[in-house]
Amino acid sequence: MTLTNRQVVLRHPVTGLPAAEDFEIATAPVPEPAAGEILVKHRFIALDPWQRSAIAGRHSADQQPLAAGMMPPAETLGEVVKTRHPDFQEGMIVRVAGGWQEYSLADGAAATLITERGVPLSLYLGVLGMPGLTAWASMERLARVQRDQTVLVSAALGPVGSMVGQLAKLRDGRAVGIAGGPEKCARVVDEFGFSQCVDYRAPGYIDELRAALPNGADIYHDNVGGQMLIDACGVMKDYGTVVLCGLISQYNDPALAVDLPMAIPILKRLVMKGLVVYDHSDAEPEFLDTVAPRIADGTIRYLEDRARGIEATGAQFARLMGGNNLGKTLVEL
Amino acid sequence: MTLTNRQVVLRHPVTGLPAAEDFEIATAPVPEPAAGEILVKHRFIALDPWQRSAIAGRHSADQQPLAAGMMPPAETLGEVVKTRHPDFQEGMIVRVAGGWQEYSLADGAAATLITERGVPLSLYLGVLGMPGLTAWASMERLARVQRDQTVLVSAALGPVGSMVGQLAKLRDGRAVGIAGGPEKCARVVDEFGFSQCVDYRAPGYIDELRAALPNGADIYHDNVGGQMLIDACGVMKDYGTVVLCGLISQYNDPALAVDLPMAIPILKRLVMKGLVVYDHSDAEPEFLDTVAPRIADGTIRYLEDRARGIEATGAQFARLMGGNNLGKTLVEL
Repeated sequence: MTLTNRQVVLRHPVTGLPAAEDFEIATAPVPEPAAGEILVKHRFIALDPWQRSAIAGRHSADQQPLAAGMMPPAETLGEVVKTRHPDFQEGMIVRVAGGWQEYSLADGAAATLITERGVPLSLYLGVLGMPGLTAWASMERLARVQRDQTVLVSAALGPVGSMVGQLAKLRDGRAVGIAGGPEKCARVVDEFGFSQCVDYRAPGYIDELRAALPNGADIYHDNVGGQMLIDACGVMKDYGTVVLCGLISQYNDPALAVDLPMAIPILKRLVMKGLVVYDHSDAEPEFLDTVAPRIADGTIRYLEDRARGIEATGAQFARLMGGNNLGKTLVEL
Repeated sequence: MTLTNRQVVLRHPVTGLPAAEDFEIATAPVPEPAAGEILVKHRFIALDPWQRSAIAGRHSADQQPLAAGMMPPAETLGEVVKTRHPDFQEGMIVRVAGGWQEYSLADGAAATLITERGVPLSLYLGVLGMPGLTAWASMERLARVQRDQTVLVSAALGPVGSMVGQLAKLRDGRAVGIAGGPEKCARVVDEFGFSQCVDYRAPGYIDELRAALPNGADIYHDNVGGQMLIDACGVMKDYGTVVLCGLISQYNDPALAVDLPMAIPILKRLVMKGLVVYDHSDAEPEFLDTVAPRIADGTIRYLEDRARGIEATGAQFARLMGGNNLGKTLVEL
């Protein structure tokens, strides 16, 4: 009997803010692994803003926009159900670039074996996965946060932003967040222990940002770009560091892009550094050894926004890209 | 007898590219120094692109546009002709913020005494002055150029750009310039020993830039901003350093500004650093001790674009801002 693999594909090319109706379910036979490959049955699909760029063909230099019938990429976590790679056995838990589907084939060399550390497995897609490592690389390598420094971070309730703030606190720094809406802001403070969180949708937002940073920010971790980057540079200290990490503001529609005038970093003598997490995989062991025990003992917290079932994927992605998610956005299968 | 001090002032508020007719001569009595002040008779007025920003009221945060009758600021070099400051005697040569005029008063504490080093005095406004120190801070402090690195610099024939390239060469690096027109480009190579210089006004400019940098640039020193910054980032190596130093492209008309999309520094993992020369006055002794002997022995070269007489100031400034100057732009009195 051939098993069926359900996939989520584009109903048509996607423009602007994605909606659930932009996607539909397709079916394919579950494939057989070739030599060196493993077949993974997904338990979780991670939804991330970068997937919007991939759908638009802008995630890497040589990419084309996805056409109708094509499946967006995603990191996934699942169980090895067939193996033709000597390092993997059935039942092992792995993280792979599995995409929006129930099963995927992976080259064994490209799969990451997940070691249990007394924390939920889904965290290896979030605070212990790429978003967490991104935050680690930002704080420990690029910005090198120090005691008593103030770190400002946008998209502060997301898995990268919430970890940036918590890693700053681990170094005895202070975290100030920017998030959209009073509920998100309250959670950034209550769940993640930020000193303050400013609601960018509120009237008087710029004044509140200034009030939250009377002495300015030493570091700004930017997940958003555009006008929010300009606003954040306005409250940076002279000689501060800006980590350029994400462009959420432009993923839905790059025509709306507002770019930073260079007079601002010149006058403030800012140092701005582009961050791509793939450069920092060598930091993963140190990152996991430091952070996993802090999650297990409750020092570092996390928030997940789960939907259940492959059919929910499109709506869950629309929720993320509309800024209505609360924490790391997952589909649980 | 009261001497007359001729000044160059705005005939009207200046918009766009300045012209000689935007300025006129005004006269005032030569002032008397108060206690702690010196009276300086200028020998040279330095004309620099930042003065265009000052005229527009954008050079510092709290500044207003200059109105009709007001005098633009400038660094000047001259002789102390009256002194009420104990550290200065008549006949001493000083550098002061004297403005576009024949005489100025200066607080002795704000005047820089010039030490003869066997080179022309005018160089203390150029390669041995603020422009030279700017290049020094860029190469030695912000970018920290190393042997075999390739440094790209815009406005390469100017006093900052030509010094950036020559300082890179002193460290056994390689310099590639960008300048406007074949005459400037030829001089960048012939006079300053750059490996190549690309003419941004020529058709096929981007292709020539790529051809001049087959392996990319390690460092870009940006005097220009705007589209040229975008073009230069396009030929940067991953992990390269961009020193943000000037915005010549926007001084005449900021409405023409094109800003750098942040996707570029993110994808290339660039480090971008804002440079303001005033931060680096503590480097001046080391800078002068290193560079002045190299000028005296001909290792480091310079180019001056002089006009004679206070009446020539407006036209000389228009020549500079139109990009028609050849080297450090001065008025000799």
